[in-house]
Amino acid sequence: MDKMITTVKWQGGKKFLGLNEHKSEVLIDIDDSTGVRPMQMALMSIGGCTAVDVVSTLEKMRQNVEDLQIEVEGLRRDEHPRYFEEITIVYKLKGDLDEEKVGRAIKLSEEKYCSVSNMFEPKAKINYRYEINR
Amino acid sequence: MDKMITTVKWQGGKKFLGLNEHKSEVLIDIDDSTGVRPMQMALMSIGGCTAVDVVSTLEKMRQNVEDLQIEVEGLRRDEHPRYFEEITIVYKLKGDLDEEKVGRAIKLSEEKYCSVSNMFEPKAKINYRYEINR
Repeated sequence: MDKMITTVKWQGGKKFLGLNEHKSEVLIDIDDSTGVRPMQMALMSIGGCTAVDVVSTLEKMRQNVEDLQIEVEGLRRDEHPRYFEEITIVYKLKGDLDEEKVGRAIKLSEEKYCSVSNMFEPKAKINYRYEINR
Repeated sequence: MDKMITTVKWQGGKKFLGLNEHKSEVLIDIDDSTGVRPMQMALMSIGGCTAVDVVSTLEKMRQNVEDLQIEVEGLRRDEHPRYFEEITIVYKLKGDLDEEKVGRAIKLSEEKYCSVSNMFEPKAKINYRYEINR
């Protein structure tokens, strides 16, 4: 099994620095005007994971994606622990794209490749939608 | 239920920008020497979440934490989807701390407050360890 290691260092207050093994940094902050909150990072990790999948798959399908923006919305439980009960991922693509291929690329990420969404799924119901702007 | 929204914008290649509603940014990159990989962000989100809990709880317990560093190690499945089957969180604390209180703060995060670990738990076995350096 592959091992992945990250470190989270306290910076005082409610600020923390997330570091990977190459020292690439993320500022984690409960005041999310200066950094990102841990639960926002969880949403970004799902968005980033499926974004990588969809871009790679559409490239292999010889589709010319001009732009991709993904909105990830999470609904949190009111009680502790306040995990996401529902997550909606909206893919906004730009380009002269084959709709059937876009749908298939997203489905492949959802069912096979996206490690993050698959890890969240037992707790969070995940919805997928897409829009193509030509 | 509380709603949280983040956006992931493609920057070309395998680079993406993660943004929260205040436009705080994270560079997501498959080449993790320049940004962080989505699965690294997932580990950092669990580390950040429990870090916030533990710092807050120990503060309420009037413990003077001088430093806190958390190592989060994830073991990924070999097959797709390659989510973490096991995650080990190691808390490295510095200060003249009451060991029983440290253990209790970590336990509270694990069992009640940490939204991220609770969301990952059905798929990933999570181990907790701590070290106190006085």
